[in-house]
Amino acid sequence: MLQAQSWSLQSPNKNLDLKLILAADGRLSYDLAFKGKMVVKAGVLGLAIKDDPGFERNLAFESVQEASVDNSWTPVWGEEKNIRNHYRELALTVRQKEAKKLRLLLRFRLFDHGLGFRYEFPGQESLTYFVLSDEKTSFPMTGDHMAWWIPGDYDTNEYFYTRSLLSEVDAIARGNATEISTRKVWTQKGVQTPLMMKTADGLYINIHEAALVDYPAMQLEIRGNSLHSHLVPDAVGNKAYLKAPFGTPWRVIHVSDRAADILASRIILNLNEPNKIPNTSFIKPQKMVGVWWEMHVGKSTWDYAGTQNASTTGAEAKPSGKHGATTANVKRYIDFAAKNGIDAVLVEGWNMGWEDWFGKWKEEVFDFITPYPDFDVKELQRYAASKNVKIIMHHETSGSATNYERYMDTAFRFMKNHGYDAVKTGYVGRVIPRGEWHDGQWMVNHYLRQLQKAAAYGIMVDAHEPVRPTGLHRTWPNFLACEAARGNEFNAWSVGNPPAHETILPFTRLMGGPMDYTPGIFEINMSAYDPAKKEQVHTTLAKQLALYVTMYSPLQMAADLPENYEKHMDAFEFIRQVAVDWDSTVYLEAEPGAYLSIARKAKGRGDWFLGAITNENARTAMLNLDFLPAGKTFDITIYQDGKDAHWEQNPKSYQILQQKGTSKTILKIPLAPGGGAAIHIR
Amino acid sequence: MLQAQSWSLQSPNKNLDLKLILAADGRLSYDLAFKGKMVVKAGVLGLAIKDDPGFERNLAFESVQEASVDNSWTPVWGEEKNIRNHYRELALTVRQKEAKKLRLLLRFRLFDHGLGFRYEFPGQESLTYFVLSDEKTSFPMTGDHMAWWIPGDYDTNEYFYTRSLLSEVDAIARGNATEISTRKVWTQKGVQTPLMMKTADGLYINIHEAALVDYPAMQLEIRGNSLHSHLVPDAVGNKAYLKAPFGTPWRVIHVSDRAADILASRIILNLNEPNKIPNTSFIKPQKMVGVWWEMHVGKSTWDYAGTQNASTTGAEAKPSGKHGATTANVKRYIDFAAKNGIDAVLVEGWNMGWEDWFGKWKEEVFDFITPYPDFDVKELQRYAASKNVKIIMHHETSGSATNYERYMDTAFRFMKNHGYDAVKTGYVGRVIPRGEWHDGQWMVNHYLRQLQKAAAYGIMVDAHEPVRPTGLHRTWPNFLACEAARGNEFNAWSVGNPPAHETILPFTRLMGGPMDYTPGIFEINMSAYDPAKKEQVHTTLAKQLALYVTMYSPLQMAADLPENYEKHMDAFEFIRQVAVDWDSTVYLEAEPGAYLSIARKAKGRGDWFLGAITNENARTAMLNLDFLPAGKTFDITIYQDGKDAHWEQNPKSYQILQQKGTSKTILKIPLAPGGGAAIHIR
Repeated sequence: MLQAQSWSLQSPNKNLDLKLILAADGRLSYDLAFKGKMVVKAGVLGLAIKDDPGFERNLAFESVQEASVDNSWTPVWGEEKNIRNHYRELALTVRQKEAKKLRLLLRFRLFDHGLGFRYEFPGQESLTYFVLSDEKTSFPMTGDHMAWWIPGDYDTNEYFYTRSLLSEVDAIARGNATEISTRKVWTQKGVQTPLMMKTADGLYINIHEAALVDYPAMQLEIRGNSLHSHLVPDAVGNKAYLKAPFGTPWRVIHVSDRAADILASRIILNLNEPNKIPNTSFIKPQKMVGVWWEMHVGKSTWDYAGTQNASTTGAEAKPSGKHGATTANVKRYIDFAAKNGIDAVLVEGWNMGWEDWFGKWKEEVFDFITPYPDFDVKELQRYAASKNVKIIMHHETSGSATNYERYMDTAFRFMKNHGYDAVKTGYVGRVIPRGEWHDGQWMVNHYLRQLQKAAAYGIMVDAHEPVRPTGLHRTWPNFLACEAARGNEFNAWSVGNPPAHETILPFTRLMGGPMDYTPGIFEINMSAYDPAKKEQVHTTLAKQLALYVTMYSPLQMAADLPENYEKHMDAFEFIRQVAVDWDSTVYLEAEPGAYLSIARKAKGRGDWFLGAITNENARTAMLNLDFLPAGKTFDITIYQDGKDAHWEQNPKSYQILQQKGTSKTILKIPLAPGGGAAIHIR
Repeated sequence: MLQAQSWSLQSPNKNLDLKLILAADGRLSYDLAFKGKMVVKAGVLGLAIKDDPGFERNLAFESVQEASVDNSWTPVWGEEKNIRNHYRELALTVRQKEAKKLRLLLRFRLFDHGLGFRYEFPGQESLTYFVLSDEKTSFPMTGDHMAWWIPGDYDTNEYFYTRSLLSEVDAIARGNATEISTRKVWTQKGVQTPLMMKTADGLYINIHEAALVDYPAMQLEIRGNSLHSHLVPDAVGNKAYLKAPFGTPWRVIHVSDRAADILASRIILNLNEPNKIPNTSFIKPQKMVGVWWEMHVGKSTWDYAGTQNASTTGAEAKPSGKHGATTANVKRYIDFAAKNGIDAVLVEGWNMGWEDWFGKWKEEVFDFITPYPDFDVKELQRYAASKNVKIIMHHETSGSATNYERYMDTAFRFMKNHGYDAVKTGYVGRVIPRGEWHDGQWMVNHYLRQLQKAAAYGIMVDAHEPVRPTGLHRTWPNFLACEAARGNEFNAWSVGNPPAHETILPFTRLMGGPMDYTPGIFEINMSAYDPAKKEQVHTTLAKQLALYVTMYSPLQMAADLPENYEKHMDAFEFIRQVAVDWDSTVYLEAEPGAYLSIARKAKGRGDWFLGAITNENARTAMLNLDFLPAGKTFDITIYQDGKDAHWEQNPKSYQILQQKGTSKTILKIPLAPGGGAAIHIR
């Protein structure tokens, strides 16, 4: 019998140790340790192939290669101007002992704050097309860690997070206790990635994936203390249809004893392919307002007839007088944007079909080119151009991706002919092709096809309800942002997002890429629109400002209504000023579910913007300005909670303070319960 | 308790009697009799709706309406210039006694040779979108009839027919004994429509459907002597996603004591909607040759590299020298077509992807616009135009309908820019969306979307491997023909089509519409291409000529190679002369599975063309020319089997006779075993 074989690798800073083991029975596994503490012990590596023994056992060593890489690259936009890519690599090739003697390569990249690895199928005579029936990767933890999780669900990630021990996860109970209409929880012990954990002895561990291309999303099933990959299946129960040569997405384990290191990591971006768009001049980080929040608060409707009744669609539809996307109303938003340096106006509900769009699992919903009678496409094109404001197109698919694909060329041509260069997509509802899921391989490919076609037309994309991101915006920087999590809108019409929500998202959903969270709600209480309403935003007003810094995105919405901003133009000044693209970012304070303070330097400007937020507990943010250039004095404007502010009892209390400061200044900013602070340094 | 209620209806000629019964328990059923003989006894009428009691029982009478219709209409092309639409109608509205009291209308149209009926969901407050979980229609026969059947199969109808009693049907055994690669037999006792039957006392009964739109195909399950509707399911097991108002396809029962009446019936066309194409000037019945049979016989290949190996696609592909669709070879076919009055040349294998196209359930196969390096699109456009010949485009999808839909606009624009006005489609392989079937609602809708978009671009369609037709070419006359059955090509590389095959198809597959059967194979024996080959066409050469008349289609292929025709230009003269559009058609002799003789008058000309065929048995066709105008003498050219001809031993023996004749002439033409005769009267 063969003996077990093993290989070791250390991270550049020597904090992380990887050990890779090929056991005597031909099974592969790995161990990962941080500063000598075990993080993953005997993690399984394996793949099941349909009609083949696959790569789970009986594997033989073939070759191994090592490499060291240290370089840097410049993103089209991002949290910093240059990104360092520094890792050590080990590439192990094994082959089946029996059957077709197929070869498999496992590539490990060990960075200072984490590990990325993937499976690669080299091109080989007896493997071209094949069906992946399962992936068997596991992440055995060394204890029953604390986790911030949402239920494993093939169709949605719009849950708020639960903080619990791994052993306490109950995805079914959590899934049943939600207002999300389209969902598919697949087991009691399933969770999604990015999964954020903290060990009893203070290690922060995060599991996600990078470069999800032509493969289903990975979710995780908890068995004891171990996490097992669970790929979202297709309509007939297969996991992926692949062709060699092929590399799977990267499985990424971040680990550090400082929470801020998790946020500062660029591992996921580094594991994605470089930019593939030859001419990126059409891509522009930007701010927008939108004919949008007014529908969420019930002031107006997406549909023309206001009935949400399928029998009143098409030619029979009569205007209700409450339609939001009218020419006049859009002009009002354009005027507000022009006056306040906002780049663009998103308009939802402009096109035919909204009476009849939701919950029917209906194939042909929207055609993406036919406006309602009260939305004058050409006049608005003229008017927006005259004000130097862009209109952002909206393509709601209601989950009917097949329908969107057949109209996509036509829809993009329509956009370019009418001056649109950005589109917000939506996938609310059950997916068509029926039997497929939002997070399966077919839809993963759909989202990417849409991005690629948009790039070819010179169109930027903000995707709502897609699979959660995995760093693909490096490769396709027209992918400005996406939702793929529970956004601010839930505060308008549901139990909302708990005050801790925004302190968790950067450690979870945002690990994969920018989120269109739609911050900036000044009218916190929905009772302002209807005294019967009890819903509210679960933050203070000042915290809404802080989110423009803590919730990174190159596309930021000033989500509230112009009339609400006009009541607080002093506070709105921060939104006018805040940048959306950055030269550098400093993570000052961070603890998942508790607090977060970030400083960012505006790209190409000397200005810095800081955001500090807390959960339901008041705290004092300690903001050491030592990142500022020494020897200079700066003007500092602080938008902070009023003394009596409280997210529930007094959310709109804020104050704006001015002071001077230098690199030696330490700001001590009181944050109210559910509060925050936004700071502009120049 | 309520008593049973019933309603009766007679066909215009009083041969058919329909009785409709609403039983005391609220169940609906029907009886159908022909000249006093029961044909259907207590046929069930019912529909199951998801999350609703549906329409199976507890139905109450609401209203009934009768009507008589006798009119006629002119098809864009067809077997006759004018089509009479003559029926009596009964429309019964019932409603649920409980639940939502939904209403359902059952519409019956009784013609002289058959019954059509369908279910209609009127628009109503509590019914807009709904899911059909099943249709419960049954057709209880009065005995164990003889049937010509192919297995019930969600994915293919490319079987040859079995003649057996209903009780002897074994679809699974038959399905397993075939070379068809993509198939899904769903039960032992399942068969497809059109189903042809004959009773012990000589009644001919045919069951099919008309106007299959937005609904799955109906197959039939045999239980005892009864036939039960079985709708092809979707990926998740539902049958159809519907929106009221909606009418199902028509269920059509033909019945007569003369087999020819079944063929002469226009009921299925009459039950389809009138033409919906405003300008039909682009639609032209035509003949074609094609770079096609040479691939089937192995003389050349569809793919450029000739490898059928996925690793040699794209830029790496090297020409094998056997590629069929080269510029030079296509020019050879264009020359042949131009010289012989053939309108068009079909070219398959012109575009990238054929190395890599089949059996992989692969989403992205062809892009429909990228030619192989040796196929010069522009030069061939110029050359074909200079010879006044059209090239017919080929879009093989390999079953990846989603891929075809996303490229369809681009592909049609490419066609129009390069002078193509007709496309042959192909759906060889498992369907994508995965989990859907060739004959389910999604694909039924796909085929129609393709037709409609083609119509919008001014493009004619010849669909291969689609759902079998149901008369939709009346509504969309750009739908020239389709395959959807076992064509002549099977004779090139399989056990082939038995000599009876072409005597059955008109009673089965062709009930729904024209077939692109690709007749005209003169080189009967495949050993001509390779001495090792034993495959052959299972007819005589003369029978191949007869098929241009007996196998109706406005698109007819002269399927053999130019060099084979050049050896028999005397016989080829019939193909040159034969029309493809008709003023009238006379069914002279007909017996399913045995023989068929048809006379047709060329549209707008005085010429008549006759075809007579037999199965494996020799016979003498008795062709009474009393359809000719009296008092005139005609020149008659007869292409008939040689004296010693036999489909197997001596298939290429033929003779051409000239004679005079009048309306009083009766031609007695000897047909060899597997033989036939083609006659041109002018």
